[in-house]
Amino acid sequence: MYDLVSLGEILLRLSPPRFQRLRQASQFDIWTGGAQLNVAANLARLGKRTAFVSKLPDNELGWLARDRIAAYGVDPAHLQFVPGARMGVVYVDFSATPRVSTSIFDRQDSAASTIQPGDFRWDEILTGTRLAHTDGIVPGLSASCADAALEFLRAARARGCTTTFDVNYREHLWTPDRARARFVQLLEHVDILATNRNVSEQVFGFGDRDEDLVKRYRDEFGCKIVCLTHREIPSVLHGAWNSMALYDNKIIRGRRLEFDVIDRFGTGDAWFAGFLYGYLEGDIEHGLNFGNALCALAHTIEGDVVQTSISEVQGLLRGADLRIKR
Amino acid sequence: MYDLVSLGEILLRLSPPRFQRLRQASQFDIWTGGAQLNVAANLARLGKRTAFVSKLPDNELGWLARDRIAAYGVDPAHLQFVPGARMGVVYVDFSATPRVSTSIFDRQDSAASTIQPGDFRWDEILTGTRLAHTDGIVPGLSASCADAALEFLRAARARGCTTTFDVNYREHLWTPDRARARFVQLLEHVDILATNRNVSEQVFGFGDRDEDLVKRYRDEFGCKIVCLTHREIPSVLHGAWNSMALYDNKIIRGRRLEFDVIDRFGTGDAWFAGFLYGYLEGDIEHGLNFGNALCALAHTIEGDVVQTSISEVQGLLRGADLRIKR
Amino acid sequence: MYDLVSLGEILLRLSPPRFQRLRQASQFDIWTGGAQLNVAANLARLGKRTAFVSKLPDNELGWLARDRIAAYGVDPAHLQFVPGARMGVVYVDFSATPRVSTSIFDRQDSAASTIQPGDFRWDEILTGTRLAHTDGIVPGLSASCADAALEFLRAARARGCTTTFDVNYREHLWTPDRARARFVQLLEHVDILATNRNVSEQVFGFGDRDEDLVKRYRDEFGCKIVCLTHREIPSVLHGAWNSMALYDNKIIRGRRLEFDVIDRFGTGDAWFAGFLYGYLEGDIEHGLNFGNALCALAHTIEGDVVQTSISEVQGLLRGADLRIKR
Amino acid sequence: MYDLVSLGEILLRLSPPRFQRLRQASQFDIWTGGAQLNVAANLARLGKRTAFVSKLPDNELGWLARDRIAAYGVDPAHLQFVPGARMGVVYVDFSATPRVSTSIFDRQDSAASTIQPGDFRWDEILTGTRLAHTDGIVPGLSASCADAALEFLRAARARGCTTTFDVNYREHLWTPDRARARFVQLLEHVDILATNRNVSEQVFGFGDRDEDLVKRYRDEFGCKIVCLTHREIPSVLHGAWNSMALYDNKIIRGRRLEFDVIDRFGTGDAWFAGFLYGYLEGDIEHGLNFGNALCALAHTIEGDVVQTSISEVQGLLRGADLRIKR
Amino acid sequence: MYDLVSLGEILLRLSPPRFQRLRQASQFDIWTGGAQLNVAANLARLGKRTAFVSKLPDNELGWLARDRIAAYGVDPAHLQFVPGARMGVVYVDFSATPRVSTSIFDRQDSAASTIQPGDFRWDEILTGTRLAHTDGIVPGLSASCADAALEFLRAARARGCTTTFDVNYREHLWTPDRARARFVQLLEHVDILATNRNVSEQVFGFGDRDEDLVKRYRDEFGCKIVCLTHREIPSVLHGAWNSMALYDNKIIRGRRLEFDVIDRFGTGDAWFAGFLYGYLEGDIEHGLNFGNALCALAHTIEGDVVQTSISEVQGLLRGADLRIKR
Amino acid sequence: MYDLVSLGEILLRLSPPRFQRLRQASQFDIWTGGAQLNVAANLARLGKRTAFVSKLPDNELGWLARDRIAAYGVDPAHLQFVPGARMGVVYVDFSATPRVSTSIFDRQDSAASTIQPGDFRWDEILTGTRLAHTDGIVPGLSASCADAALEFLRAARARGCTTTFDVNYREHLWTPDRARARFVQLLEHVDILATNRNVSEQVFGFGDRDEDLVKRYRDEFGCKIVCLTHREIPSVLHGAWNSMALYDNKIIRGRRLEFDVIDRFGTGDAWFAGFLYGYLEGDIEHGLNFGNALCALAHTIEGDVVQTSISEVQGLLRGADLRIKR
Repeated sequence: MYDLVSLGEILLRLSPPRFQRLRQASQFDIWTGGAQLNVAANLARLGKRTAFVSKLPDNELGWLARDRIAAYGVDPAHLQFVPGARMGVVYVDFSATPRVSTSIFDRQDSAASTIQPGDFRWDEILTGTRLAHTDGIVPGLSASCADAALEFLRAARARGCTTTFDVNYREHLWTPDRARARFVQLLEHVDILATNRNVSEQVFGFGDRDEDLVKRYRDEFGCKIVCLTHREIPSVLHGAWNSMALYDNKIIRGRRLEFDVIDRFGTGDAWFAGFLYGYLEGDIEHGLNFGNALCALAHTIEGDVVQTSISEVQGLLRGADLRIKR
Repeated sequence: MYDLVSLGEILLRLSPPRFQRLRQASQFDIWTGGAQLNVAANLARLGKRTAFVSKLPDNELGWLARDRIAAYGVDPAHLQFVPGARMGVVYVDFSATPRVSTSIFDRQDSAASTIQPGDFRWDEILTGTRLAHTDGIVPGLSASCADAALEFLRAARARGCTTTFDVNYREHLWTPDRARARFVQLLEHVDILATNRNVSEQVFGFGDRDEDLVKRYRDEFGCKIVCLTHREIPSVLHGAWNSMALYDNKIIRGRRLEFDVIDRFGTGDAWFAGFLYGYLEGDIEHGLNFGNALCALAHTIEGDVVQTSISEVQGLLRGADLRIKR
Repeated sequence: MYDLVSLGEILLRLSPPRFQRLRQASQFDIWTGGAQLNVAANLARLGKRTAFVSKLPDNELGWLARDRIAAYGVDPAHLQFVPGARMGVVYVDFSATPRVSTSIFDRQDSAASTIQPGDFRWDEILTGTRLAHTDGIVPGLSASCADAALEFLRAARARGCTTTFDVNYREHLWTPDRARARFVQLLEHVDILATNRNVSEQVFGFGDRDEDLVKRYRDEFGCKIVCLTHREIPSVLHGAWNSMALYDNKIIRGRRLEFDVIDRFGTGDAWFAGFLYGYLEGDIEHGLNFGNALCALAHTIEGDVVQTSISEVQGLLRGADLRIKR
Repeated sequence: MYDLVSLGEILLRLSPPRFQRLRQASQFDIWTGGAQLNVAANLARLGKRTAFVSKLPDNELGWLARDRIAAYGVDPAHLQFVPGARMGVVYVDFSATPRVSTSIFDRQDSAASTIQPGDFRWDEILTGTRLAHTDGIVPGLSASCADAALEFLRAARARGCTTTFDVNYREHLWTPDRARARFVQLLEHVDILATNRNVSEQVFGFGDRDEDLVKRYRDEFGCKIVCLTHREIPSVLHGAWNSMALYDNKIIRGRRLEFDVIDRFGTGDAWFAGFLYGYLEGDIEHGLNFGNALCALAHTIEGDVVQTSISEVQGLLRGADLRIKR
Repeated sequence: MYDLVSLGEILLRLSPPRFQRLRQASQFDIWTGGAQLNVAANLARLGKRTAFVSKLPDNELGWLARDRIAAYGVDPAHLQFVPGARMGVVYVDFSATPRVSTSIFDRQDSAASTIQPGDFRWDEILTGTRLAHTDGIVPGLSASCADAALEFLRAARARGCTTTFDVNYREHLWTPDRARARFVQLLEHVDILATNRNVSEQVFGFGDRDEDLVKRYRDEFGCKIVCLTHREIPSVLHGAWNSMALYDNKIIRGRRLEFDVIDRFGTGDAWFAGFLYGYLEGDIEHGLNFGNALCALAHTIEGDVVQTSISEVQGLLRGADLRIKR
Repeated sequence: MYDLVSLGEILLRLSPPRFQRLRQASQFDIWTGGAQLNVAANLARLGKRTAFVSKLPDNELGWLARDRIAAYGVDPAHLQFVPGARMGVVYVDFSATPRVSTSIFDRQDSAASTIQPGDFRWDEILTGTRLAHTDGIVPGLSASCADAALEFLRAARARGCTTTFDVNYREHLWTPDRARARFVQLLEHVDILATNRNVSEQVFGFGDRDEDLVKRYRDEFGCKIVCLTHREIPSVLHGAWNSMALYDNKIIRGRRLEFDVIDRFGTGDAWFAGFLYGYLEGDIEHGLNFGNALCALAHTIEGDVVQTSISEVQGLLRGADLRIKR
């Protein structure tokens, strides 16, 4: 029924106007995001039918989040609203070279962290669904979330979904050791994996050259497609991105793209959404390039979700023409 | 050393622009407040030396709160910053007749809720201090906060401070029964008490006529001065306020004031601060009228703290002259 | 499948900050609304399943409108996007006594005005739907829109839907004579009608006392339920509202409510949505009172759609308690 | 060549968002105004040809002021730009009952205060002009300004202009005694005078009943038309206005109007502009009523100048219809 | 009487805050511009007497546009206000590499598109005027506009004005073939022409090297001065500009300038205004360099019109000194 | 008692939103700063006890400034409030290559300019204080300020404070000759001096190579530590900074840092504060590098004062890691 179903948490992101710090702010812009939602939202923006599965507080903040999810084009029908629960929040400010953004995560005991096995009727949600997505953050939210993530991946495979997983690791949630223990359980149920060098070294101790690193994931966990993304950060306001994949013992490479950085949050998720779109519509190489393009565009737009259209991404794939169109 | 020391919690207050609801907001204005802080801040605005004693997260949000406390003129020297702790937040929107404001309190497990006996060096803080203030919210934050409030009142009395207490009751924190149990412990250490009819009925079951109600507090708890405030709410955007006090078996009454309502938050605290100022500078009757005036002004200014001056309050006490001065 | 399907137009509403005039503005707030959408959106806010049927430009403005429709909880699946078409816009400013708001409608040749019979698959949309709604604006947009409105009402009745119609008359669209000619065609297919004294006099020449006026609609057009709403405008920033209905030869009356006026746009639509909700959940009297309450709340919130919850409306029905809840 | 030429000062008006006080502001809205300019600007808004004569700093702030003057439709051709001079500024905040607005005038040594006799080519400016306007503020700016005001009125009378004068008295500029000494010199050259009870008592000691008060001005200074305006201030956010005039030994009275108060600054100037417009187009009674209407509208619009049209004023003269027009 | 008279259209430009896309906006900044107006406005900013000739809707939006035109220092006396007409609007968002701005032009049937021959009294407007300006957009607005543009150029030449024309081609208005047909009619009445490589190739098929390209215009249409501008777009937020001219069979070249890009809209018009200023005050080479400097500055300022002064441009011509002056 | 006491002036800094010019602004952001305050404020942000000594107007603007000083963590206890005095203001806009910011200083006759010898009780303020700071601006404010600066430095030395001085020269205050005459008086009482090449050449005619230049200050004035800062301005939005020092006949050099430029105001003061911090905590080399790091961070944050923490500066000293931390 859906092209993709994603399990995870939505956060309020509160940010002062650009280049003010949290400490000096008198106003916050209100954004919503969360790595798992962003993947679903970006695919919805590209015309795919997606749903987001989570728990939200049953109050104005939870409803605000619901409205934004619906506005992205994601089906909010499977969200559960929990009376008395709290909303996870992340406070961030924007930076410029050589300063780094501040992130204050305040997600402890959030509604989403109370997700547990048995909460959702997977049969109804996943039957007929093509892709089932979650990531490395979800099992870090709580033990019950980790169990629910496992239930989700198993339920998806059992119904013929392709499972997708982004190995996000967040220091504010847990240690590498604790993360690895859970990841090992989950990865054996994953078909398409996205990772990067940082997390591979920090969590798994995979320090090999790129081509060998992706094989480690395949060999140890059996993932069918292993994607490795590479971000260059020459300065805070300018960057570049590329990605490669291992499939069927072949290495496939995308084309590197440069971009200005307006809002870096959610750009990795944009890549994964773009990869999945391109993969569904074409092949892995198309996926890598579509992902790179969506990721580049994501850097130039405020907010965690790319406000774009297929024709805009395709235009960029044909080569950037920076003249104003009128 | 201080005219008043207040023990309590500071909250971030996040509010959409007036008359937008939380659910539809794209921006929050950032205010700071909290009933106990407001009393100290309003007295500082009137030139008194005050300090606020609390715990804050050791991050940009805690520092933001510190800066605001200092900006109010309150001494932040006794604040403690707790690494990894979280900031209490309240989300509110503004309403108009016949709609009611939304308040979402998200203060569970805040840095302030970890306050416990022994945290603060009361000898250093309270020696030479005239007034020691806290209220009915603090013991509701956590069991350790309730114990710390008791320690605070005892320590204050032991050092010759006059103790002041506002019987604030908050439904989101606890039941009337649980509140009463704690209030009974605390009130016997209180010299100056502020209360209103709602909380008196709801928590203590004091449903008598005004003159008898205040005597109940005196008789049961031994408070020297018992103040009863009375708010009229003919409509959301217009109101009136009066107060009376029992002292030495005499009933003293203030003069009622009407006002437009721009921001109702913190206006009760403004009354108490104004009462204390007027009482310190004059007598109880002056305190009631000064409090009424400060409370009326507080309704007309955005934010939890009254941005005013003594001469402005005095002007109002002489009778409002609404012509523009230039 | 839906509780209500509405056919109509969505407009961008561009407004300067409150009490600036259009002429002096340097910023516009962007709202979306439209009488037909507002009915569907308000019902969705109350938990009903609704859909909005319209045509939109296939560009960023049309997509913006789609996102807002989805955010309201209204199903956008039946919207059609027309390449090269334009978005209808209304520019409005807010006023205070004795000044009147400015409205500049710029909706000529909008995407919605190109709606014509045969555009929508009514069978798919209306089968299993309870209420089919449109109003007096839609036939004024263009001749093809008038034809499509007729097709819509007929198709709805043919599939067992209850048809609902608000006799909105807009001077910027057409003359009373032209409007009446079309209304006469449409009203014979209408089950539940909402009207007011102004339009009844101006378009139909119905100048009788209230009780007779509603009977004229029943007698001439056969409407089963005829609702008459009454707005009092003592000043720009304060008002009152009541409503009555004729059903089965009985006059049913609601309870009058007073309110502050923050944003008057869409409040009549809020009444109709509230009436329909109350009617579906109870009876006509409940409908009138629920509508009055929703209408009163609508005046206190920025934007064309009421951001409320059932419990909030019910609270007001029990009697307004203006104390802050915390 | 002009319908009215006004001599005076333009000020930047810096105001925090409504109901924030200056002390707590993080942003100022930038308005421009000044009693003498407002009269010219309001007349220009009504279609009259007007010019403003003043000196401005030759920097971005002076140019900002010039652009706003031109935007009002006032001819900026006779403005002089003075290198190194400073711009006069007034800081104001908005209030609500029972609080009064703050005004901090920072106009000492402004470019306008350096105006002196001989600065302007009156022959070129005033020849063919109908009305020459200035007021009681200008002579208070500096001794040279007072001399220049006298030169202006004399030059205007010598060229057949009707001279108009508003007896504005500002405490921040001078004492009543010093003001009276200058006013006495000027008033003998004035044809149409506007005054109110406050200034009449404070500066001239005219404490009589209204009908006698206006005669005092006529008898002592020979003014042909003496207008007396009356403002009622029942509350900060609601008011009423009326006016009367003495001409040819007859008392003419206007009709009283009530209004909400959004921005009170410049409303007296709006009255005078409206009076002059109505007088030029009709007679004194029309002038009083047109002035009252323009003054009422002025209260409902942000900024010192009324953003209105003749048809809007005429609509109000026919009786306020508060229904939205669409 | 004027240094330059320009015939054309003014548009509202509605833009979200920088780096938000139209689709996600909740506010628009309101700018006004239009290629023909920009030339007149920039020259007025530099102290030249200019007028803008157009038709506007007779409503608040048309008056807003009039006020902005006057604020630029351009004479609005020849604008005509058309009751019931609509305002042309362009919606744009800002981009960063590698994303391109969105432009949605909604100018169909605007007031300006109804301009037709005979509308304006050219004798009054053009007599004594030095430069008469219009461009390639105006004839694309409507057939009557194309006829009016021809009438304008002929009338100007007949009264001894130098005619100036910018070969702007807009895809949203017409095809290259239709544009060429009209351009050919107009160019034979043009003295000073500005063009670039894109439009030369797309509309005229002039694909030669620069030096030959400009001669084609001279040879085919008889233009006395042919300017060719060259924009480099290494990235969205950084650019460079140069220009050259053919006059009297000689090629004159300007000096290239680099700049940050804050707002690219109107920068080509800034160049032409700067060229005309420098040409009037000096010679063609001065014109090219003055135009390049004004164009560079235009990129660094929000809005379509350069907010600068002659001394600032001259400072840049002497070589940029980027130290803050204080 | 303090780590640093600074004597000087605080200014309101009024700035339009980034990349709007003053002339076109409709809003100003309100910042506070001033070179002498910035040094004290930045040190307070790093945990040092500092006080600012100045005079302020006794009105809402002066109180606003007081609140901001307190918010920075600087002790406002020694500020004096002068009834009727005015606040100094500087209006600035932000620029991009190749445009330069506008600065309009309006500080003539400010409250601070009335500072004179004898105003402050230096014994109370300076006893036990480590560093006493002022700079080259203060003596330029007025003759009495120059005398007071001399008194301050002498009083500081007499009480064993180390005196620090930044040779700021401002063209809007005085000529190089007048500045030099005063500087010569002051510098003989200075222990730690900061200067740069521009001011050294312009005021003192010191045009030597760096190593000799710093010795000139030592040899002529006897300063113990002479720091020379060097700013590179390759473009408006990107820069670099380095510094060196002469001490005990040795040249010590810092490490150069590059940065994006968000807000250049106050960055030199940040350097000096950082130098003093590093020097107090370590040695001169640590001071140079700490100053360079604080200066680099200062460029990336809005406002005149660096909103940072010691750990953030130390992170940068270890080498910038531009990855987001979460």
